[in-house]
Amino acid sequence: MITLIVKVNVEPDNYGDLIYETKIAQKQTLLEPGCKGYTINRDLENPSGIVLIESYDSEMAIEYHKTTPHFLKWRENVQPYMASPRTSVKYTSI
Amino acid sequence: MITLIVKVNVEPDNYGDLIYETKIAQKQTLLEPGCKGYTINRDLENPSGIVLIESYDSEMAIEYHKTTPHFLKWRENVQPYMASPRTSVKYTSI
Repeated sequence: MITLIVKVNVEPDNYGDLIYETKIAQKQTLLEPGCKGYTINRDLENPSGIVLIESYDSEMAIEYHKTTPHFLKWRENVQPYMASPRTSVKYTSI
Repeated sequence: MITLIVKVNVEPDNYGDLIYETKIAQKQTLLEPGCKGYTINRDLENPSGIVLIESYDSEMAIEYHKTTPHFLKWRENVQPYMASPRTSVKYTSI
């Protein structure tokens, strides 16, 4: 399994909007056949820090995810809410 | 739910030993009543980078975890395998 840890640094005023958009994306992403998990997490010591933990069963499933309308819409809609560009690191389960 | 993202920077020569010890800890931790998940993940672009993603149902469950013999043994046993001290960030699910 492949897990993406996506770090998002949200502008505090846009927190609610970013979470709203991300919850929509989460529901749609969990319906993808290759998606095995998608959680939205808030850093307890940094109110701007959001981390998405997304798991997929293959590289192909990740490539597919990146082509979906809900991902493309999420990426576009949350762009103005971010205090800095998001970062993503890819891990494989051991 | 509370999720810990624990970053471990392993000395390459000690990779196998660290994973062995961590898999033992993983099995024991998953038996704790408050533990909801524990995955071991390797950074695909950095062979020294290991990330543990641990989920617990409460702060109390995390405090309990830190007192367990398997955690204390893991912490002691893996100490010499790390290239730098591990870091841990705590998140709450949204």
